[in-house]
Amino acid sequence: MKIILNLVYKGSLFSKNLAPILTQLKFSHNKPHWGSNKLHRKIKIRSPLHDIIMADPKIEEILAPLRSSVKEQGDLVRQLKQEKAPEIDIKKAVAELKARKKILEDKELSLTPAEELFDRAKMEDLIKRRFFYDQSFAIYGGITGQFDFGPMGCALKSNMIQLWRKFFILQEQMLEVDCSILTPEPVLKASGHVERFADLMTKDVKTGECFRLDHLIKAHLEKIKSEKNAKPELKAEIEDILIKLDGMNADEMSALMKRFDMKSPVSGNELTPPIEFNLMFNTQIGPSGLVKGFLRPETAQGIFVNFKRLLEFNQGRLPFAAAQIGNSFRNEISPRSGLLRVREFTMCEIEHFCDSKDHPKFESVKDIQMLLYSADSQEQGKPAQIMSIGDAVSQGIVNNESLGYFMARINLYMLAIGIDPKKLRFRQHMGNEMAHYACDCWDAECLTSYGWVECVGCADRSAYDLTQHSKATGIRLAAEKKLPAPKQVEVVEAVANKAAIGKEFKKDAKVINEALASLDTAALEELQSKMETDGEYILATSAGEFKLNPNLVSVRKSQKTIHVEEIIPSVIEPSFGIGRILYSVLEHNFKMREGDEQRTYFSLPASVAPMKCAVLPLSGNSEFTPFVRELSQDLTSVDVSHKVDDSSGSIGRRYARTDELGVPYAITVDFDTMKEPHTVTLRERDSMGQVRLPLANVSLIVRDLANNKISWSDVEEKYPKFEQQENAKGAAA
Amino acid sequence: MKIILNLVYKGSLFSKNLAPILTQLKFSHNKPHWGSNKLHRKIKIRSPLHDIIMADPKIEEILAPLRSSVKEQGDLVRQLKQEKAPEIDIKKAVAELKARKKILEDKELSLTPAEELFDRAKMEDLIKRRFFYDQSFAIYGGITGQFDFGPMGCALKSNMIQLWRKFFILQEQMLEVDCSILTPEPVLKASGHVERFADLMTKDVKTGECFRLDHLIKAHLEKIKSEKNAKPELKAEIEDILIKLDGMNADEMSALMKRFDMKSPVSGNELTPPIEFNLMFNTQIGPSGLVKGFLRPETAQGIFVNFKRLLEFNQGRLPFAAAQIGNSFRNEISPRSGLLRVREFTMCEIEHFCDSKDHPKFESVKDIQMLLYSADSQEQGKPAQIMSIGDAVSQGIVNNESLGYFMARINLYMLAIGIDPKKLRFRQHMGNEMAHYACDCWDAECLTSYGWVECVGCADRSAYDLTQHSKATGIRLAAEKKLPAPKQVEVVEAVANKAAIGKEFKKDAKVINEALASLDTAALEELQSKMETDGEYILATSAGEFKLNPNLVSVRKSQKTIHVEEIIPSVIEPSFGIGRILYSVLEHNFKMREGDEQRTYFSLPASVAPMKCAVLPLSGNSEFTPFVRELSQDLTSVDVSHKVDDSSGSIGRRYARTDELGVPYAITVDFDTMKEPHTVTLRERDSMGQVRLPLANVSLIVRDLANNKISWSDVEEKYPKFEQQENAKGAAA
Repeated sequence: MKIILNLVYKGSLFSKNLAPILTQLKFSHNKPHWGSNKLHRKIKIRSPLHDIIMADPKIEEILAPLRSSVKEQGDLVRQLKQEKAPEIDIKKAVAELKARKKILEDKELSLTPAEELFDRAKMEDLIKRRFFYDQSFAIYGGITGQFDFGPMGCALKSNMIQLWRKFFILQEQMLEVDCSILTPEPVLKASGHVERFADLMTKDVKTGECFRLDHLIKAHLEKIKSEKNAKPELKAEIEDILIKLDGMNADEMSALMKRFDMKSPVSGNELTPPIEFNLMFNTQIGPSGLVKGFLRPETAQGIFVNFKRLLEFNQGRLPFAAAQIGNSFRNEISPRSGLLRVREFTMCEIEHFCDSKDHPKFESVKDIQMLLYSADSQEQGKPAQIMSIGDAVSQGIVNNESLGYFMARINLYMLAIGIDPKKLRFRQHMGNEMAHYACDCWDAECLTSYGWVECVGCADRSAYDLTQHSKATGIRLAAEKKLPAPKQVEVVEAVANKAAIGKEFKKDAKVINEALASLDTAALEELQSKMETDGEYILATSAGEFKLNPNLVSVRKSQKTIHVEEIIPSVIEPSFGIGRILYSVLEHNFKMREGDEQRTYFSLPASVAPMKCAVLPLSGNSEFTPFVRELSQDLTSVDVSHKVDDSSGSIGRRYARTDELGVPYAITVDFDTMKEPHTVTLRERDSMGQVRLPLANVSLIVRDLANNKISWSDVEEKYPKFEQQENAKGAAA
Repeated sequence: MKIILNLVYKGSLFSKNLAPILTQLKFSHNKPHWGSNKLHRKIKIRSPLHDIIMADPKIEEILAPLRSSVKEQGDLVRQLKQEKAPEIDIKKAVAELKARKKILEDKELSLTPAEELFDRAKMEDLIKRRFFYDQSFAIYGGITGQFDFGPMGCALKSNMIQLWRKFFILQEQMLEVDCSILTPEPVLKASGHVERFADLMTKDVKTGECFRLDHLIKAHLEKIKSEKNAKPELKAEIEDILIKLDGMNADEMSALMKRFDMKSPVSGNELTPPIEFNLMFNTQIGPSGLVKGFLRPETAQGIFVNFKRLLEFNQGRLPFAAAQIGNSFRNEISPRSGLLRVREFTMCEIEHFCDSKDHPKFESVKDIQMLLYSADSQEQGKPAQIMSIGDAVSQGIVNNESLGYFMARINLYMLAIGIDPKKLRFRQHMGNEMAHYACDCWDAECLTSYGWVECVGCADRSAYDLTQHSKATGIRLAAEKKLPAPKQVEVVEAVANKAAIGKEFKKDAKVINEALASLDTAALEELQSKMETDGEYILATSAGEFKLNPNLVSVRKSQKTIHVEEIIPSVIEPSFGIGRILYSVLEHNFKMREGDEQRTYFSLPASVAPMKCAVLPLSGNSEFTPFVRELSQDLTSVDVSHKVDDSSGSIGRRYARTDELGVPYAITVDFDTMKEPHTVTLRERDSMGQVRLPLANVSLIVRDLANNKISWSDVEEKYPKFEQQENAKGAAA
């Protein structure tokens, strides 16, 4: 599966197996399925590889044999590749390498001290209860792999996207486009998606129920393994199979199905042999039913097919970057893991078209430290390491400056929206993972309770896509570059005597003329020498061979001065999966109040928090109303999103509620507000600290806090602290 | 068609016939079709009905007989409705009313003095050349009805949406959601789309080519009409048919096809009888092929199915408004008129759920003057009239405050993004146009070279949608409202002796118990009296009649105190078609420089302009570079989107280019900039006025100009004018 995908899909973003639960498409009435899975109630999230650089010698002692086992296999793979060994041997060795790598990684994670207890069920409950997002069409029974974002999730998502737009499009002056989702078949044929964007599945021969093949095999083997009377040898063998499963092809999986006599886990019926299921949703465009179309599986193709227009917009000059924010669709066989594997998702994609891979702004990011997990480290059993992107490029770990520049910018963006720097790494694709046309590819991965999740792919796609679309359409998708100095080139061409050819060959004349025009330099030289020596030349064409004489064709050599050269630019592609990033942001910011597990909240950075501020009248006293209204108007006039919560709960209860929504600031109107000069309290979510300040100042202060122009400690320095015990037992109203 | 649509689609937004060209779905290689239509080269746009209030008495004299002809027919329609005449008679009378109305409107437009010459081909050329938007997949031959937005169109669209979000969601504290596009069939069955969201078409019986039926008939009849030897009576009859075409059903159209012997205009082959073609794109969700889904035809349903979650988020309280911004899809039979009728489009929809239709903020908008074209005016042959929304509501022209509030807010938004106030009207749906469940509906229409185009629908949908989804799912979509005081109600219920019934009726017991439980008060009273008088009662059930005696069932009356009542809220729905609005904004802001027709530009308001500012070094002199870089950084740091144009054209040529892009301000760095104190020139697009000001100030000034915090005249007052002739011959580089 992975290999199938990688051939067409850069970075293999969204192609990772995430959880071991076999789920199926469900559509029954009144039974929402999402969130009902109570597995993984408390999952230890271990602090990542980050700290391993200063690793505990005891831990390193335990890991040492595993590291050398990986290294040994990595060396073997390299050797086989150098020797150009048969592909099947290399594949086997790679599968074994992956298996050893996984054992090492699991051990590493298990030995690292547990940092905190993360309660996924509790977070999912909060997400559902406060409608950050939830299953789509739940009142109709729901569809797996589809989610609706409620007010808070939608605002968070939209703030993340606005920040992305500012961070990339505005600051880098990229060309943003907004292209069609419905895509006609020929476009996706050229890109390779029609043929190869597929997963393996199997069907119940009687009911037609479908199962994703790797999920089915995994579940089946795990069941056998867990049986009481399972023999140790069988258990060990199954473990080995499970590790290699990800790299298996249809035949190998089919053999497993037969060997273990797999049936439908639902009905017990026979299953079909493996079927390749294309993951694109198809439909017909127009009423005739003749124009086949798909919902785009990525936004990138919309940019490639507009390359000529964009180049022209950029006045013909390279480099330039185009970007697109929009929805893509994949008809997953069995979606799972909440937002991590869905059928409909928002992507932000950049295509940076360049002729040179140096980057003018690389200097500005070169000192940024990042956690890099290079292909070499992976193959040699070494841990990921922190290094500056400047060093990574100069040491050749990252292929070029442009790729490095974008990796650094991705890193900065991820931190700005609240990703925990200790849970972010860049993992390089190993040779066998990479799409065949890519020359380097790094995934930004976030550590979550589902493991390391690919959130952003950053690939150097070379000139693959533009070349494919050029071939399919006959339209040159290339830029012209002025040469530093004009160049003299020798042009060799066949000069056909068309009249004579027409007369002699009649209806074949056309094909002969075309064949002559397309002869390359070597063929032309042969033509010339044959004419000189033999007085004739045998021309091979699609309509057979023809004998030509010097009267019909001659060869002309001439000098030509050229000022420009034609370039099919390379493409660096950072590709962001917004849903996965959003989920990681939520996990990384989910907190519990010390001593009160029931009081949970999201410590989201103000820049992406769904709302910046809550306005709370202390009680339902109507004298507060004019102040609340004034505050709300003031906040609106300075574009601060906020919520007035004048419901009846105690103030502590309402603070707890705004905390749950991730709102960073709360303004409280109380009896002292009515006295002149009018003052209010301002509370910060994470510290729960409060200050007292003039009503007239508070809107601008909240705006500046939300825009990171001032910090909370600036505010605490300037204004008197407001001491009043929050009602700690104010959780979830 | 209109009627079919209106049954399910509020406001009939996007249901208008726009242009008389018969287009077909095309998909052939290398032949972009869009923009090739050179009809309508110069179209007179006439100033609208706005001025007619102070109408020229001469014009009124000409219009008088037409007005009374409309009024006469309008009166007849009313009379027929009052008399509850047969539906077919009413329908005929309405068709005639529409015909007379159209004659009046056409005459009105033709008599109003031409305001300006609008050259649509010239604007389309600019839109294409500067890639505001263009046909999707053009290198593959393109698909009609699909457009890609290039950098400028995308930025314009995204700025319009951001302003919309600020204007509605932030200022009104609406709950924004982001729901799935792929929608399972049962949802759209309940909403009525599966059954009724259809257009009539006909197919070539041999080639299968499809034609939208009304377009085909129109083109056919217009051709007959234009033939040299066409008789006057026939011409008159055809004119009459054309006017009534919009209201015809399948049978009527089929009769026309037969009578005029219509064949395929392409092949001359026979055509099929009318076929209802559902406009939704269908696909299968999941691999089994068993779950049928559609691409949503509107965003509204996503809000309705989330009603319970949203109500809960709002702590159970009414009123509240939810909003959604997203793409919808309609598989048009023959898309046409550029962005006005497309297959894929962005909508912004609001659903305001309320129990009372008064609006707390109505007071703040009541004095806003709007051009209203009421149903009554339309039926009585009167012109649209300017009035305050306060008067319109108090006079009952607009049904209620909530509807009026949103109309006023729509009006303000449209003006803010650059719609010409003289080309904006609100037209009320006439009784026969309105969806059967709606109680009032107004469309915001923009006058363009295609005529009046519906851009925003604003409908009072009552409780229709929530009721439909409740019925389909069995889940109550309702709010609870606390009664002002607890209420005592008498509850009457049947008390069944289930054991005895079971014993006596065996397998029928269940149906009997159910029938008893569902008896209404009247039936229960009859039951009680029958038992008292006859000692038995005959119960009718789905399984036949059963004789019951007092041992089996009795009637109990009791008092119950209720504190809340259940309410299915009404819905006011403003629904914005962003593509249509964007097109209207472009038309209303397309200008030519006086005396230089070649120099065209878009006078877009800074708030939505694709970029706020251009930075232009006077020449390629490398000494300018550090100043340009500094300026670009300054502008970025205050979030001002801008473009550095350091290409080689003259400054006049580059000004012309920024004008074409609609960029309102341009900063020029010249030789004086290098002197201390460093200064630059700042130029305003519409007036072409320039001032000289310190380099250090210019970024903040442009930001404040772009945010409407200061005006250009403020800047001109403060800084010295910079006099230098622009090279007027600098058009289109």
